[in-house]
Amino acid sequence: MNAEMAGRTRVEMVMATIRQRIAGRSLTPGARLPSVRGLAASMKLSTSTVVDAYERLVAEGAILSRPGSGFYVANQAAPFALAEAGPKLDRAVDPLWISRQSLEADEADLKPGCGWLPPSWLPGEGMRRALRTLARAEGPALADYGSPLGLPPLRQLVSRRMGERGIEASPDQILLAESGTQAIDLLCRFLLEPGDTVLVDDPCYFNFHALLRAHRAKIVSVPYTSSGPDLELFAQTLAEYRPRLYITNSAIHNPTGATLSPVTAHRVLKLADQFDLTIIEDDIFADFEYTAAPRLAAFDGLERVIHIGSFSKTLSASARCGFVAARPEWIEGLTDLKIATSFGGGRMTAELVLNVLSDGGYRKHMEILRQRLARAMTEVSAHLKGFGIKPWLEPQAGMFLWCRLPDGIDAADVARAALEKRVVLAPGNAFSLSQSATNFMRFNVSQTLDERVFAVLGDVLGR
Amino acid sequence: MNAEMAGRTRVEMVMATIRQRIAGRSLTPGARLPSVRGLAASMKLSTSTVVDAYERLVAEGAILSRPGSGFYVANQAAPFALAEAGPKLDRAVDPLWISRQSLEADEADLKPGCGWLPPSWLPGEGMRRALRTLARAEGPALADYGSPLGLPPLRQLVSRRMGERGIEASPDQILLAESGTQAIDLLCRFLLEPGDTVLVDDPCYFNFHALLRAHRAKIVSVPYTSSGPDLELFAQTLAEYRPRLYITNSAIHNPTGATLSPVTAHRVLKLADQFDLTIIEDDIFADFEYTAAPRLAAFDGLERVIHIGSFSKTLSASARCGFVAARPEWIEGLTDLKIATSFGGGRMTAELVLNVLSDGGYRKHMEILRQRLARAMTEVSAHLKGFGIKPWLEPQAGMFLWCRLPDGIDAADVARAALEKRVVLAPGNAFSLSQSATNFMRFNVSQTLDERVFAVLGDVLGR
Repeated sequence: MNAEMAGRTRVEMVMATIRQRIAGRSLTPGARLPSVRGLAASMKLSTSTVVDAYERLVAEGAILSRPGSGFYVANQAAPFALAEAGPKLDRAVDPLWISRQSLEADEADLKPGCGWLPPSWLPGEGMRRALRTLARAEGPALADYGSPLGLPPLRQLVSRRMGERGIEASPDQILLAESGTQAIDLLCRFLLEPGDTVLVDDPCYFNFHALLRAHRAKIVSVPYTSSGPDLELFAQTLAEYRPRLYITNSAIHNPTGATLSPVTAHRVLKLADQFDLTIIEDDIFADFEYTAAPRLAAFDGLERVIHIGSFSKTLSASARCGFVAARPEWIEGLTDLKIATSFGGGRMTAELVLNVLSDGGYRKHMEILRQRLARAMTEVSAHLKGFGIKPWLEPQAGMFLWCRLPDGIDAADVARAALEKRVVLAPGNAFSLSQSATNFMRFNVSQTLDERVFAVLGDVLGR
Repeated sequence: MNAEMAGRTRVEMVMATIRQRIAGRSLTPGARLPSVRGLAASMKLSTSTVVDAYERLVAEGAILSRPGSGFYVANQAAPFALAEAGPKLDRAVDPLWISRQSLEADEADLKPGCGWLPPSWLPGEGMRRALRTLARAEGPALADYGSPLGLPPLRQLVSRRMGERGIEASPDQILLAESGTQAIDLLCRFLLEPGDTVLVDDPCYFNFHALLRAHRAKIVSVPYTSSGPDLELFAQTLAEYRPRLYITNSAIHNPTGATLSPVTAHRVLKLADQFDLTIIEDDIFADFEYTAAPRLAAFDGLERVIHIGSFSKTLSASARCGFVAARPEWIEGLTDLKIATSFGGGRMTAELVLNVLSDGGYRKHMEILRQRLARAMTEVSAHLKGFGIKPWLEPQAGMFLWCRLPDGIDAADVARAALEKRVVLAPGNAFSLSQSATNFMRFNVSQTLDERVFAVLGDVLGR
């Protein structure tokens, strides 16, 4: 190495040291950097090397020079980034990749990787009727903020529907939110401090990873089996990491389509008691079930389980409305947080959802939808098997098929290749904290019926 | 003090010590408590005193006993609380008091303290037409999630409207949010780490205090004058606390109704440059203006200023939709955070807002509304003066009158007494970080025209 190269390397070393301290917040925005002389002495470098490094950091905007006073960390140095900083090593397995691709896709694109039904499968006529009904409503429904807990008749209806699944929750224990995601977000604000540990399933809904990162939580995971989390590893993880929270789906698990068994539910709750774990049971796929699976919230009586639901999957993802059901003494604090962070909530969408759900057509619509999904499941499953893509299990209901690709094929490679042909897929590692689902792919059967999906799959897989 | 009392006091001292460590998170959930023997030695107490204290903390649910292993902090010990823990010393000046009372009030209650217009002042017919139009829309508008940035034609319209106020922002620099509050919340997630310092005006919109507390920010404030923040104290505060962010309203300031002057705007921006401060300019009252005040975002070109708007005040608080305009390179990170915390955004309300704003009737409606507010301002102002309640200034526009009560009268006492008569008022200290507005009250003139408000005020003030 010649002298110039060695000099450049030393400058970069100083820059890296300062960047690390800023990223790790041992140097916070506005803080004064070590003096040039002091840092040079402690790193055994010349002052000119440190001056060079500082000047380059000033040019990058990471630090500021105040003549006569020294160098300071720029305030704008590091807005919080969910995606990894720097070059995106593998955007295909980033938790936000599937969301961004699916939401950005235009109507001509195919989205077998997305997590929702095509518009034609949703109760469009019911929604149109609900909109016309709302157009005749009194002024406040169209103009005023919602009440802090959210529209009372919708909370009553949610309470009745939960009762049908064995979960007792009075309307006062139910808080409406702008979506299921917002409901979980609110709970994370309420229950977590930055740095707290949260347990998720492996695989799990990829947005849990993104949401928990936004809360600066540490995430740990336990493998999910066909009947719930692996109990031995679940117990070990609770003992070792003492997570504050466990976020899971119990009815139709995303992405696997698995259903929690009663015996596993019972053991999970016993372990939760033993290790004082709070559980968020995200039940947004509930209406797709044929027969009701056990709910943690039903067994536990909303003692340490918090139940989440929404209408985005079965009614409309455009008119968003979710809810939280929790122990009564938590509702007040959650409501304060809801007001602080979103003020009055979405009254109009709550009115619309109430109108559609009160309409006699909704139950009939759901019956037809469940049958349609069951047929699509059979059809897509058969078709995928023809490509050597094998379902990990045959789900009892829902829209997801969690599949193993032919040996040696990396789902991220397949997803990237398919994206070039305007097909959005959902590669397994986006769902896996341990990155152990390289060979897996989630298919939404309602969005996979199109022959073009299979044409592209065949093409990409070389079959 | 007898021996039993002394013993009880010592037990309580140990309990208080442990509670403080839990509250200050030097003992985090799941952490092991000091051993009984160790704590007894360090506090110079008997082991039986520590055992008593620990057992009482177990009974309270703050800690857990694991036989053979020791005592541990309960995971559920301390969900985050925005409101002060323990007895509510003075709920009337809590930042959440006005929100909760206003949002919980029923239609028969009077709300001169609330921050919105009566439904009959909003464009109800325009909203009804928009709902009927939407009932004829294509399937995806009624069923699908929104795109990550939000409805493109609404972002174009927002861009044009900002251009009319001298703020250049391309549609790609505009991100739709579910409300103005959610927009600011998203920015706090993006720009703040827990413990960062944020500057607000004193007085300012009370919910800024609540929102910033939810982000675990430190809050500092600077007095607001009739032309903007007090510049000398503004400079001093930047130098002393180096806040990361400043959140303000520049057009029609809440609660004072003051308007930022061009010279103050320029000085604020120079100081922001000098101290590398980012500014959130919350402009949700923009449409109420007669003549456009200077905007920080216009002077600065969205370099270090982020501009926020919404339609909740002029169009509907039921169909909520807000937006952020920011420098282009921040939009990506903000969008990732929006997806992680609320997924697809509220497409249907965005469609409704677009329908109403595209309707020729909206500008006409706003003209009439501004005149109606100006008349109400004159009328309410005269009426209040009759009670010795004096406006701090005569606002150029908007709905708020920031008033000084007769000497020696505490606005919180007045608000509590009025609440018993079902009138929700807005006492000054809810807006004041320094608690220096004991003698002030914010009146919303559109909600103060009712004779019953003055009857209750006269009664409560004894006039």
